[in-house]
Amino acid sequence: MSKLSGFPELLPAERNVELYVLDHLRRVFELHGFANVETRAVEPLETLLSKGEIDKEVYTLRRLQATDEESDAGDTLALHYDLTVPIARYVVENANALEFPFRRYQIQKVWRGERPQQGRFREFTQADIDIVGRDTLPFHADVEIAQVMGEALAGLPVPHLTLQISNRKVLEGFYLGLGVADPVAVMRIVDKLDKVPADAVKKMLTDAGLSDDQAHACLALADIRATDTSFVEQVRALGVTHDVLETGLDELASVVGACRPVDGVTVTADLRIARGLDYYTGTVFETRMAGYESLGSICSGGRYDQLAADNRNTYPGTGISLGISRLLVPLLADGLTSDRSVPSAVLIALVDEESRATSTDVAQRLRARGIPTEVAHKAAKFGQQIKQAERRGIPYVWFPPAAGTDGQHSVRDIRSGEQRDADPDSWLPPTTDLTPQIKEPTS
Amino acid sequence: MSKLSGFPELLPAERNVELYVLDHLRRVFELHGFANVETRAVEPLETLLSKGEIDKEVYTLRRLQATDEESDAGDTLALHYDLTVPIARYVVENANALEFPFRRYQIQKVWRGERPQQGRFREFTQADIDIVGRDTLPFHADVEIAQVMGEALAGLPVPHLTLQISNRKVLEGFYLGLGVADPVAVMRIVDKLDKVPADAVKKMLTDAGLSDDQAHACLALADIRATDTSFVEQVRALGVTHDVLETGLDELASVVGACRPVDGVTVTADLRIARGLDYYTGTVFETRMAGYESLGSICSGGRYDQLAADNRNTYPGTGISLGISRLLVPLLADGLTSDRSVPSAVLIALVDEESRATSTDVAQRLRARGIPTEVAHKAAKFGQQIKQAERRGIPYVWFPPAAGTDGQHSVRDIRSGEQRDADPDSWLPPTTDLTPQIKEPTS
Repeated sequence: MSKLSGFPELLPAERNVELYVLDHLRRVFELHGFANVETRAVEPLETLLSKGEIDKEVYTLRRLQATDEESDAGDTLALHYDLTVPIARYVVENANALEFPFRRYQIQKVWRGERPQQGRFREFTQADIDIVGRDTLPFHADVEIAQVMGEALAGLPVPHLTLQISNRKVLEGFYLGLGVADPVAVMRIVDKLDKVPADAVKKMLTDAGLSDDQAHACLALADIRATDTSFVEQVRALGVTHDVLETGLDELASVVGACRPVDGVTVTADLRIARGLDYYTGTVFETRMAGYESLGSICSGGRYDQLAADNRNTYPGTGISLGISRLLVPLLADGLTSDRSVPSAVLIALVDEESRATSTDVAQRLRARGIPTEVAHKAAKFGQQIKQAERRGIPYVWFPPAAGTDGQHSVRDIRSGEQRDADPDSWLPPTTDLTPQIKEPTS
Repeated sequence: MSKLSGFPELLPAERNVELYVLDHLRRVFELHGFANVETRAVEPLETLLSKGEIDKEVYTLRRLQATDEESDAGDTLALHYDLTVPIARYVVENANALEFPFRRYQIQKVWRGERPQQGRFREFTQADIDIVGRDTLPFHADVEIAQVMGEALAGLPVPHLTLQISNRKVLEGFYLGLGVADPVAVMRIVDKLDKVPADAVKKMLTDAGLSDDQAHACLALADIRATDTSFVEQVRALGVTHDVLETGLDELASVVGACRPVDGVTVTADLRIARGLDYYTGTVFETRMAGYESLGSICSGGRYDQLAADNRNTYPGTGISLGISRLLVPLLADGLTSDRSVPSAVLIALVDEESRATSTDVAQRLRARGIPTEVAHKAAKFGQQIKQAERRGIPYVWFPPAAGTDGQHSVRDIRSGEQRDADPDSWLPPTTDLTPQIKEPTS
């Protein structure tokens, strides 16, 4: 049996890193009052294709025992490729039972039907936060999304992150102010600056009908970035004016100005960010990780005023999506891991098979006080039992007294070798030993 | 858009119940040192079919853009229908990197390609614990699985549960001692006692070649149940002897005798349980929920000595699987829910839009001390803001002083109406108000 390319699986010590990340994200999102939702893994293929900005790289499903009529029925199901289309559907379907603005987080796997040879993920985990309004959604929701995700990113065991924020109204207004006829086309071209040299982008702009001066101004705008609201003056210095541009500058300054400084994350206004292929209408987000720029953006999103609609209402939304697998799998491959392959902080040694009940009883007394504990699986020599703990990364081995003796319990920190008498009803390890600890790669 | 039958989705207040259950299970499993693993959602169709005891009700996958060669390649992927086949594959694939006995828990969705009209779940969540050895697995692993799952079931917000334990060696040995030629066939017939009257089962047994006395003895064995080891004497009283029967009685007595009494769960030896269609080789488990017997077993498993194998080793295993959706969805439909649709314990009122920064600042000070908090989305009249909290089930509304005044902060418990001055850097609600609380159905 061989591993399936594009379907990453983690070993237990690596999974502990992912659990740490998932727990941290959940804690931050819930502290901010975001409710958790899970949606089913499948959507009707039609729904996915009608929203599609993903080149239809989806997996369709078929019951192995499907009848011919079923297969022809045209109600094919497919695995979701993001969590945005599903939440839009969920909101419309449950609108009467939800409170708006509806603030939710969602952490689930998604699937993309990539070609096998491309070596890209075909199954991966995403964490999304969104705020969805009914008919209206105040702008401060954009500010909140940036603040909450900024705070969430700050606690991750990863290299330095840069949360880049832009606003399509700034770009669109600027292009309109320049007298450009099709601002969306220009946005799509400027969006290529990540992959294509500036000269080539400039040529694409003039090929699209822009004058040399217009193309030059577009590139000058894309060059502006600032970690505070000083970008507003830099834009104004380019001498272009338009109402939409002014609205965009106000909005972007509000978002950037409101982000609290957090360790490990730089928040920056970056006017190169356009997300040209998506349906955003205002604020847009991307995120780069230092040393892993080739991954592209690992956390992206923005405002869409037409997230969903039913016969009576529209549901404007704003949100951001963190690619957990995209972020973690390369870091794990580079050596990020945890200090153990089990949750256990303590291994209870086994004197002999007859005294297993004694060891199990000690284990229960430790567990009752919140200490993850396992019992040695066989009564090998103590040296071997200590090695068993070592191989699993368990920091403590507990030695009960031999059956029938009135000896003392003792516990050994196998990292230092220090061994002390201990009471199973009161001994506690340091808090940091209670849960697996993240180990940064030693580079 | 209409809901898809067989793909249950929960509202946020219901999802809080599921999160409570998932958190509880994780806590118990980790206290016992079980490591968490997630496997990919897909397996090669061949792997699933070769293990198949599920009438091939699987969903196969196809890339929408698949080329003809790809479709013909015979390496079709399908969604897993349980977590046992995947963990067997994972263990073999990662055997060199795992420590044995390998103790893991796994909580994931699984899918079954049921016919749409059957109204059965097509997507559901399971929680599995298994212990897998390399070449050998001591019997006490069976005892541990029963103890851990018994403890996990005890903390669930559900009606009384009965964990029924049997052992196929008891049944097989008894049938062999009776002189029955094909004990497995008899096991499969006796397994129907749940759905078919005893008389009809007896007739099936005599039709299968058993004498009247033999059939009578088989039914007498199936009638034996006891919450302690007294079942051993009841079996012996039937006057059948066989070595395999003796081994089975010893094993079953060890498991039942070792299960600690826990609230809300009765552990019972029940010799009607055979799990005739599965590949178990010793201990077997099933679980019934009071008032919901028609669901069948909501938590099942057992020992299989041939879980997996590679060229060099066999991997015997023992485990049990809890059907979380199977358990919860009917209870939620009957009114089990939580007291709120958001994690927030506090809603910070908004005096006016200009003082949003003040309210956000108070919220951050509460969050810094672990209190989930949200800020009112608009500066409506306070009465309306209180109603907004009420509709979400948020127990407290916090009123900051009006901007520019040196008034006091105050907080109101909206359930009692009691309002008091409070300090954003020290006020704490009772612990039970910090997280959503389960609400039993009022029947």
